[in-house]
Amino acid sequence: MGWGDLGAFGEPSKETPNLDQMAADGMLFLDFYTASPLCSPSRAALLTGRLPVRNGFYTTNGHARNAYTPQDIVGGIPDSELLLPELLKKAGYTNKIIGKWHLGHRPQFHPLKHGFDEWFGSPNCHFGPYNSTERPNIPVYRDWEMVGRYYEDFKIDLKTGEANLTQLYLQEALDFISKQQASQQPFFLYWAIDATHAPVYASKQFLGTSQRGLYGDAVREIDDSIGKILKHLQQLGISESTFVFFTSDNGAALISAPKQGGSNGPFLCGKQTTFEGGMREPAIAWWPGHIPAGGVSHQLGSVMDLFSTSLSLAGLQPPSDRQIDGIDLLPVILQGKLIDRPIFYYRGNELMAVRVGLYKAHYWTWSNSWEEHSKTGLSHESSQNPIFMLILANGELVPVLGLFGMARRGIDFCPGQSVAGVTTHTQEEHTYLPLLFHLGRDPGEKYPLSFASEEYQRAVEHISGLVQQHKATLVPGQPQLNVCDQAVMNWSPPGCEKLGKCLKAPESDPKKCSWPH
Amino acid sequence: MGWGDLGAFGEPSKETPNLDQMAADGMLFLDFYTASPLCSPSRAALLTGRLPVRNGFYTTNGHARNAYTPQDIVGGIPDSELLLPELLKKAGYTNKIIGKWHLGHRPQFHPLKHGFDEWFGSPNCHFGPYNSTERPNIPVYRDWEMVGRYYEDFKIDLKTGEANLTQLYLQEALDFISKQQASQQPFFLYWAIDATHAPVYASKQFLGTSQRGLYGDAVREIDDSIGKILKHLQQLGISESTFVFFTSDNGAALISAPKQGGSNGPFLCGKQTTFEGGMREPAIAWWPGHIPAGGVSHQLGSVMDLFSTSLSLAGLQPPSDRQIDGIDLLPVILQGKLIDRPIFYYRGNELMAVRVGLYKAHYWTWSNSWEEHSKTGLSHESSQNPIFMLILANGELVPVLGLFGMARRGIDFCPGQSVAGVTTHTQEEHTYLPLLFHLGRDPGEKYPLSFASEEYQRAVEHISGLVQQHKATLVPGQPQLNVCDQAVMNWSPPGCEKLGKCLKAPESDPKKCSWPH
Repeated sequence: MGWGDLGAFGEPSKETPNLDQMAADGMLFLDFYTASPLCSPSRAALLTGRLPVRNGFYTTNGHARNAYTPQDIVGGIPDSELLLPELLKKAGYTNKIIGKWHLGHRPQFHPLKHGFDEWFGSPNCHFGPYNSTERPNIPVYRDWEMVGRYYEDFKIDLKTGEANLTQLYLQEALDFISKQQASQQPFFLYWAIDATHAPVYASKQFLGTSQRGLYGDAVREIDDSIGKILKHLQQLGISESTFVFFTSDNGAALISAPKQGGSNGPFLCGKQTTFEGGMREPAIAWWPGHIPAGGVSHQLGSVMDLFSTSLSLAGLQPPSDRQIDGIDLLPVILQGKLIDRPIFYYRGNELMAVRVGLYKAHYWTWSNSWEEHSKTGLSHESSQNPIFMLILANGELVPVLGLFGMARRGIDFCPGQSVAGVTTHTQEEHTYLPLLFHLGRDPGEKYPLSFASEEYQRAVEHISGLVQQHKATLVPGQPQLNVCDQAVMNWSPPGCEKLGKCLKAPESDPKKCSWPH
Repeated sequence: MGWGDLGAFGEPSKETPNLDQMAADGMLFLDFYTASPLCSPSRAALLTGRLPVRNGFYTTNGHARNAYTPQDIVGGIPDSELLLPELLKKAGYTNKIIGKWHLGHRPQFHPLKHGFDEWFGSPNCHFGPYNSTERPNIPVYRDWEMVGRYYEDFKIDLKTGEANLTQLYLQEALDFISKQQASQQPFFLYWAIDATHAPVYASKQFLGTSQRGLYGDAVREIDDSIGKILKHLQQLGISESTFVFFTSDNGAALISAPKQGGSNGPFLCGKQTTFEGGMREPAIAWWPGHIPAGGVSHQLGSVMDLFSTSLSLAGLQPPSDRQIDGIDLLPVILQGKLIDRPIFYYRGNELMAVRVGLYKAHYWTWSNSWEEHSKTGLSHESSQNPIFMLILANGELVPVLGLFGMARRGIDFCPGQSVAGVTTHTQEEHTYLPLLFHLGRDPGEKYPLSFASEEYQRAVEHISGLVQQHKATLVPGQPQLNVCDQAVMNWSPPGCEKLGKCLKAPESDPKKCSWPH
């Protein structure tokens, strides 16, 4: 989901009354970030409080390449990482994950081996359907065992977009909360729904109800569900002892637009990029009786802060034997403080950009490669005359077909947006002269500051000092997303025997994963 | 001001607490439009309830060219047009305009000749300073007479951006309201401030207070002033008998960005264009005790509706001897109704696009000309390598320098945005196969619907029927913006003798005005 997908963040259809009310009753974070412009690394960062480059959720197969956990990934969350639920357990919390895990699917990466007590959901995205020969359909787990597979036992109709998964996840959440309230046990619920991830889905009662098409239907169902969860907390009388935070794991995937893509509001590009559209997220904190209603914070926040903030709420200290990147947001949320801290925008193994205050310095720019961007094909969507362009860049002749007039079939992370020297299609290094933006005057990252200006020099000097310090002390984790192997796919998850759903894995044949972006 | 400039509309700095509160206490219009993508025609439409092509605020000097009322314009609002204040007078209203008039500056166009009883402000934009030989500085009027000129008697510091004009306009508004309340006379106040129009200004107490630079300072001062006006109404006990509406006359001028340009949120392009960024506006209706708080309307609204709605509030009927384009919004505002009506997007003499429901059909597209767009020059803002591009469009070879890599000095109405076949730099006709967008799924006008789809055919058939009907019954007004003459400038406005500020006009030399966009 993107920054611009909620009414409270300016979505022009304003179809999220429950989230908007949550914001009105709580605190809106306008400058809140993921730790990575895509899902797996971002989720690993949320649960460890650490940058993906530290917790291993990155690749060194290529420079500045995004990587995640597809079915054939060999790696996952290392045992050496301490996850939020592992720590909360020490304070007596019962921990449940509902929905998408995405931190690895081999047995050693199972969420119940990393601090969760309960799980209903799946280890990977709901891609498919697959025919069980080249790859199996993704399993859905209840706790330790598979209870079925997407498309087979848990239907997703790709034609109509119908699937009742969000309703299943909602019921799981309500039941878990009821159970915990009844047993007077503190709990941590990680409600990781994924209806807005392509292939986007919604249940029947929401299909066709949004101005925004299927994506909007999915958003409306999520919004409705969150309204029900908050109401449930209130009805059980535990809203004043339950801290709720809403955010997303990356910006809206504009490659899925307009049929399945969301909105990043006024920001540049989307998922997969380190521009604001890829990493700035909607974020709302809610805690009636504690957070003053209608608060708006400009604190630079991160999903990693949810790790530190949750520990603080539970009266726990963060681990002291490792670098934690998250900060405790309670002084921000409860006392309106502003804590000075940088935001690091990583793409794979590379620190692409840094935000300090209102300044953002890009040390590297890249949207995606010309090859990926320019896969061409005359589309039915366009009857414009084809136009042929030649671009002579740095002495290199690059034929580019169909940038204008002819619809592309290529991958475009910045559709309709192109900022000279910024949304580059080659990896451009700016280490010695970073591209600097003032995100107050220019939230869309369209106007780099003049290198010769005093303002530039002052800001870059300050930021580059922080970067040097960061790099000098960085201990990268063992990269988990380098090796892929068809044999590790979800052929025979635990519980498959009972269901008669075990599939035969092929011979192991580990290879370097290919990460094109 | 643009759609995206208010916190309530998703501006990421959220610096408009008073307007946001006004929205929370009133009704937010998310689909509200101007009648033209620039100032004079839009204001003429607001006060007449009629499209500029009817009331004469357009040019036939070129096809689809924007025109307004610069100092040397010969035309202005025709006597035959009936303005809102003229009509309100019949119901006993006292009418005041504070700020920018822009409906012509020659004696016959004076606002007090067109229904206003009082005026404090200026006939034109606050461009300048001028040296009084080639052109005079713009006069500021109190009622019938000039009381000084911008830059001479009413200071605007172009270096610091300091000017106290908004404070003057605020005090005028508060005084007028007090006077009307004391005399128990109904009133119409047209508070036409212009601090966000380049050259942008703010008074000392607001300078440097915004995250958004000088433009944000200006927005904050306007927001603060509106808060004071609403509070004044409440303190005088007349808020429940005073209908207040806030909107803007065109989208944010992105050519002034980032230093003096605002935000059009997720929409395409800005001022001067008939894309959503040029014509969709922030809009808020406020009337405590009548409008339910927190309302959100998707009614397709127009500045011209303020004409009809105001008449309705005053118990008057709109003129029946002419076509009125505005509709009465009271059923929308008070009863939550939705009225089916098209929005016509004109640029000069051409109907460029039409919105019906969530569909928008472009019959013509144009951002601005290649010549205007591509005026080049190596800028200090960029150290990128120059790149040379050749674009072969429709068999015509157009050399384009510096689209990438080299900063341009040209005029760009869509900076950082470029949608193939949509933001065209030649005037493209699509009459027989309009470009169709679904503004719900695609508010940014990036993905034209497939011409072959059933959805396209159904929608275009419906819209084109409305267009034919509109065109068949249209009686264009005498175009007012065709002739320019240096002799008609503000050389010797009434009252100049008393001030010793009369200047000698040159010989009359009427010429066709040049309208490049």
